[in-house]
Amino acid sequence: MILPPHLTVEGGHLLIGGQDTVDLAQRFGTPLYVMDEDRIRENFQRLESALTAHYPNVRILYAAKANGNLAVFRILASLGAGADVFSAGEVALAHAAGMRPESLLFNGSSKSPADLALALEKGVRVSVDSLDELRQLDAAAAEAGKTVEIAFRVNPAIDAPTHPKIATGLATSKFGIPAGQILEAYGAALAAEHVNPVGIHCHIGSQILAVEPFAREVEVLVRLASDLIDIGVVPSFIDIGGGLGIPYRRETDRAPTPEDYAGAVMPVFLKGISDLGIEPELWVEPGRWLVGDSAILLTRVNSVKTAHKTFANVDAGFNLLIRPAMYDAYHEVVAANKAGVPPVQEYSVAGPICETGDILARDRMLPELKAGDLIAVLDTGAYGFAMSSQYNSRPRCAEVLVAGGRAAVMRRAETIDDLTATTLTPPWQE
Amino acid sequence: MILPPHLTVEGGHLLIGGQDTVDLAQRFGTPLYVMDEDRIRENFQRLESALTAHYPNVRILYAAKANGNLAVFRILASLGAGADVFSAGEVALAHAAGMRPESLLFNGSSKSPADLALALEKGVRVSVDSLDELRQLDAAAAEAGKTVEIAFRVNPAIDAPTHPKIATGLATSKFGIPAGQILEAYGAALAAEHVNPVGIHCHIGSQILAVEPFAREVEVLVRLASDLIDIGVVPSFIDIGGGLGIPYRRETDRAPTPEDYAGAVMPVFLKGISDLGIEPELWVEPGRWLVGDSAILLTRVNSVKTAHKTFANVDAGFNLLIRPAMYDAYHEVVAANKAGVPPVQEYSVAGPICETGDILARDRMLPELKAGDLIAVLDTGAYGFAMSSQYNSRPRCAEVLVAGGRAAVMRRAETIDDLTATTLTPPWQE
Repeated sequence: MILPPHLTVEGGHLLIGGQDTVDLAQRFGTPLYVMDEDRIRENFQRLESALTAHYPNVRILYAAKANGNLAVFRILASLGAGADVFSAGEVALAHAAGMRPESLLFNGSSKSPADLALALEKGVRVSVDSLDELRQLDAAAAEAGKTVEIAFRVNPAIDAPTHPKIATGLATSKFGIPAGQILEAYGAALAAEHVNPVGIHCHIGSQILAVEPFAREVEVLVRLASDLIDIGVVPSFIDIGGGLGIPYRRETDRAPTPEDYAGAVMPVFLKGISDLGIEPELWVEPGRWLVGDSAILLTRVNSVKTAHKTFANVDAGFNLLIRPAMYDAYHEVVAANKAGVPPVQEYSVAGPICETGDILARDRMLPELKAGDLIAVLDTGAYGFAMSSQYNSRPRCAEVLVAGGRAAVMRRAETIDDLTATTLTPPWQE
Repeated sequence: MILPPHLTVEGGHLLIGGQDTVDLAQRFGTPLYVMDEDRIRENFQRLESALTAHYPNVRILYAAKANGNLAVFRILASLGAGADVFSAGEVALAHAAGMRPESLLFNGSSKSPADLALALEKGVRVSVDSLDELRQLDAAAAEAGKTVEIAFRVNPAIDAPTHPKIATGLATSKFGIPAGQILEAYGAALAAEHVNPVGIHCHIGSQILAVEPFAREVEVLVRLASDLIDIGVVPSFIDIGGGLGIPYRRETDRAPTPEDYAGAVMPVFLKGISDLGIEPELWVEPGRWLVGDSAILLTRVNSVKTAHKTFANVDAGFNLLIRPAMYDAYHEVVAANKAGVPPVQEYSVAGPICETGDILARDRMLPELKAGDLIAVLDTGAYGFAMSSQYNSRPRCAEVLVAGGRAAVMRRAETIDDLTATTLTPPWQE
């Protein structure tokens, strides 16, 4: 298998950031997420370089939903990233990591009054998703005696090739304002006293393995910018969202590189703004691309069973990694303590959750496995722990960060007591 | 809409257990799960009566994964239920609720060495899922100087009509030992020194809206019991699992009643054991049927948007109720503060999560909605909070229990601080 550079094999063991996964599993227990800080830095710098090679005025907003660990926010903050935030929790994490309010954009199609008040209080720009939200935000800003800078999220009606559950740019998506209604929205924002429309925002989906949809998106945004200038809104930023995919199928996926992405998007962007005579900031909102391949999930084989096929039953399931069960997502798996051993048999790697769909990997050729062996599930840095649950009353596992030869727990494993930490006893049950 | 008896309408408001949902939402905040204790009691007693009308020797094991709140365990324990447990956490909850170890069955296709040790320590019977597990359990029992009573989980290769992700009785499921290998397994158990095979276990799936597959399942189990007697194993219990569905689509689903279920299953069971001259306990493992309709999820409308269709954007999403996004599951929704008002328009009820699939209910006729209105999502007692996550860095909501006119918090809402309660700072980030 083609491994990314931070994953190597030595003495039959898989290493991450130069550290033996067998030792890490022994030291910190399983299941265990292990993330490589240096890989995140590399990813960020590569994407940033690819974009700034074309245009200096680029701001990278980390799509915070991909991985909400505070340590990850800190890494990205230290690199100069802002964040695409969707909740008060994400605002708090970005703040705790030292990101400045002006480097954030508060996104989302369903913001509560408390969300809007928080954005106003902290001075975070808002991507407004509806006229109803605009009205509420204007009223809240009036009450707070403030003016808030906004973008509208445009629904560009672009059909990008990805899983329908995460294709956010479709005409039928819940997100954004249809292109046909967007000028009316900006007009309303101009008429409102306490909001100031300063940007345009769009996002066409997630895990997109082609660059052409992004180029089409930028065309739509440039056209819209032209219309906005006509009504008196000169955009100070154009936010093209995220969505660049990663090669989960390491043998066969042909994923665009950041250079491919920039090469498709930037000429359209540059020609457009040059024609318009403007120099807005270009904002991008990568999540998966920054952190996806930086982490592995280590899981121990509990038992092996041959029924109609052979199962390696492991100690992590969709409680910890829901992507295979929810999106039929593919993740490569490696026998981490037998990494040099040739594959001899097909295994399905099955989790401990009481559902038939709890299969982390189907029908994979692996070395002969037995109880106690260690499996690494690759590319689990994005939408892994972030979507984890305590389903089946299972405490969530620890997350370890490695960097330059060091390893440290960035989230401790929950205990059984944590399952009832917020439980209260109704008086009549006492 | 046909409401279950614990949900009523008064003065235009939806009531649960006689309590006004508008008041509950005001008092405890939204989103909010509200569960009716009395409804769980009714459900339990109805199912128990339906079965014991045919045969007295019945044991109901609550499928603990459906809802892991300790208060729910307490209610079911007080009714005499045991539990079908899948993890150390579920054993701990059952124990804390006062369920005796002999009323539990430790199930699961992937038990860790710690799980097996716990079963031995507590004296909990084990449903063994593979020969590998049998070998490990026997060795662990030998080391502990104990003998453990077991069943094997049979895979009956029955195709029950339900969602493929929860159809556990299919030949292709990860669960159980194929019928063709099961006698070999019991033979191995007889030969092992520290395990004692005393029962048979099977489960064909979840949310099954027909009774015929259950009757077929019992036929398989009776036939197996006959084979077992031939090799010297007289089963002291036959566990037919759970899986009885509930009418999520309250207008159109024709769900079997407990009486239908008992009427289909019990004659087959009784004829079988009578032919064999045995009187085993009959074990059943209902989860959804006991708790599913007992709870509602109250969620507040944040905004209303008309794009290609009209969205009511609410404050609960698949972070709190993943069934619609994960299984395309249907839940009825009621405008809880406009419960008497005639529906005038189609709405899609969309959550705040940053994914296109975060739609709780699609294209439902509802009264005119605006920000501040309250939506009740029905039948969310099973696989609701149990599968919840902190995705998008959203603290999980509170759960309230109502009973006989009282209401109390049985799980407090998480705060933003709870999101980082287990987070640690790697030394090099300090």
